[in-house]
Amino acid sequence: MTTATIVNEMLTSRPTDTRLGGELMAECVERLTNCAQACTQCADDCLAEQFQQHHMAKCIRLNQDCADICSTAARVLSRQAGYVPDTVAAMLSAAIEACGACALVCEEHSQMDHCAACARHCREAENVCGAMLRSLPGLV
Amino acid sequence: MTTATIVNEMLTSRPTDTRLGGELMAECVERLTNCAQACTQCADDCLAEQFQQHHMAKCIRLNQDCADICSTAARVLSRQAGYVPDTVAAMLSAAIEACGACALVCEEHSQMDHCAACARHCREAENVCGAMLRSLPGLV
Amino acid sequence: MTTATIVNEMLTSRPTDTRLGGELMAECVERLTNCAQACTQCADDCLAEQFQQHHMAKCIRLNQDCADICSTAARVLSRQAGYVPDTVAAMLSAAIEACGACALVCEEHSQMDHCAACARHCREAENVCGAMLRSLPGLV
Amino acid sequence: MTTATIVNEMLTSRPTDTRLGGELMAECVERLTNCAQACTQCADDCLAEQFQQHHMAKCIRLNQDCADICSTAARVLSRQAGYVPDTVAAMLSAAIEACGACALVCEEHSQMDHCAACARHCREAENVCGAMLRSLPGLV
Repeated sequence: MTTATIVNEMLTSRPTDTRLGGELMAECVERLTNCAQACTQCADDCLAEQFQQHHMAKCIRLNQDCADICSTAARVLSRQAGYVPDTVAAMLSAAIEACGACALVCEEHSQMDHCAACARHCREAENVCGAMLRSLPGLV
Repeated sequence: MTTATIVNEMLTSRPTDTRLGGELMAECVERLTNCAQACTQCADDCLAEQFQQHHMAKCIRLNQDCADICSTAARVLSRQAGYVPDTVAAMLSAAIEACGACALVCEEHSQMDHCAACARHCREAENVCGAMLRSLPGLV
Repeated sequence: MTTATIVNEMLTSRPTDTRLGGELMAECVERLTNCAQACTQCADDCLAEQFQQHHMAKCIRLNQDCADICSTAARVLSRQAGYVPDTVAAMLSAAIEACGACALVCEEHSQMDHCAACARHCREAENVCGAMLRSLPGLV
Repeated sequence: MTTATIVNEMLTSRPTDTRLGGELMAECVERLTNCAQACTQCADDCLAEQFQQHHMAKCIRLNQDCADICSTAARVLSRQAGYVPDTVAAMLSAAIEACGACALVCEEHSQMDHCAACARHCREAENVCGAMLRSLPGLV
C-alpha cells in the first residue's frame, strides 16, 4: 500500500478542521517518505563501496540530512490541527534545499546505480514540495 | 510507488555485503512506514475529536510512541553495513510492543474510523515484525 | 553534562574538515536539543490538563512540530562533512519559524507553568538560531 | 542547561498523572540524549578519517542506529500520559542493545579520540538504562 493511500484513508476519517488535503498533499507526503527511504539506503550503500572514505563522505552526509529533513517535513505536512502556514512553508523550503543538494551530489555519482536512483527520488520530492509550497493555503 | 519498491530498488544496486533482503524484509519496512504514517495522523485526528482531553490522552500518547518507534525500526532494518542481529531484533521487539499497545487502545475506539484504520495498520506491522524477527539471520 | 559539552568534546577529536564550531554553534545545538525536550514534555503535559480537547489542540500540534524540527536542526548543524551552507540555513530558518509559532501559543497559556517554561525554551532556541544563521560561514 | 534540568522543570508543572520521574529517570533521559549527540558526531567524525571506507563502515552504521534508537528511547521515556510499562521496557532494552553494540566497536577504535569518547557515552547510557529498566513501575 502506498503512503498516499494511508494519508487519504486517515484524512477521510478526520472529524473536523482539515486544512490540507487533496491529491497534491498526499503525493507530497509520499514523495518525501520515499525520498527519506532512498536516502537512508543510499548512505548505507555508499558505505559498501570500495573507495577512500573522503570520496563518499559528502554524499553520505547529504543523504543523512535529507533523510532526517524529509521525514520531518512529511510529519509536519501530515498534521492538520492548529495549522500555521509559515512553519509548514519553512519546512517544505528546507526539504527543497536538502533534496536539491543531495540530488546534485548523487547525480555526480550516477555511475553507481544507488546514487542514480536516490537522485531521482530527491528530484521528485523537490518538485512536488515546490508545487505544494506554491499552493499552500493561508500563506501571505 | 510503495516503500517496498524503493527498498528493493536500493538493495539491488548495493555493491556488496547485503545481509537482509527479500520479500519479507521489504514488506516489513513498508508496514512499519505505513504504521508510522497512520499513527502520526491518528494522533492528529484524535485532537480534532470533541471530547474531554483525558478520554483521548492515552491513544494520542501511544500513537506518538508508535510513530517514533516504527520509523526508527524501519531505518534500523533498512541498513545493511555492520549488521548486528541483536540490535535489529531488539528494535523489532520494541516495534511489536508499541504496535500491540497502540492497536489495543485504538480497537477500543473503533467507532472512530481513524482509530479503526490505525489499529489495522498497527496489527499488520506487528504481524510482519513478528515474522521478520523469527527469520532474522544470525540470531542465536 | 550539557549538550554543548558533548558537541565540543566530539569536535575536538575530529581529524580534519571542521566547518562549523565555536561557542555559538555548541550553544545552538544545546538550545535546539533543550527546546525539543521541553516541547516533547509540554505536548504530554497538555494532555493531562482538564480541558476540552480543542482548547489545547493547537499547542500540542505546534509542540510536536517544534520537537521534530528542532531535533532535526540539531543533527544537521552537528554534521561537518560535506557542509552545504544553504541546507543548514534553510533548516535553521525552519527551526526559527517553528520555535516562534510554538512560543506564541505557549505564551497565551502562560498561566500553565509547563507552557510558560516551554515558551522560554522556544524563545532561547529561536534567538540563538537567528544569531547562528547570521554568522553561518559560506552563505551567499 | 542540562537535559535533566529540563526534564525536571517540565515534570514539576505537569498537573496530574505523573507515572515516571525522579533523579534516575531524568538522568536516563539526559544520558540517552547525550549518547545520541555523541553518536551523530562520531559517525560524522569517522567520515573524516583517512581510511578505506569498509574500515569504518560498521562503526558509522552502529553510530547511526544508536543515535536513532537513543533519541526515540528518550522521547518514549519522557512521556507520562497513558503509560504502558511493556512498551517503555522494550524501548529501553533496544537502547541497551544499541549502546552495547556501538560501544564495543568504538572501543576497538579507541586510538581515535572521538570513538573513545563515544564509547564512554554509550556505556553511560547503557548502564543507566539498565538501572531504569530494573526500577520501572508496573512491570510484571
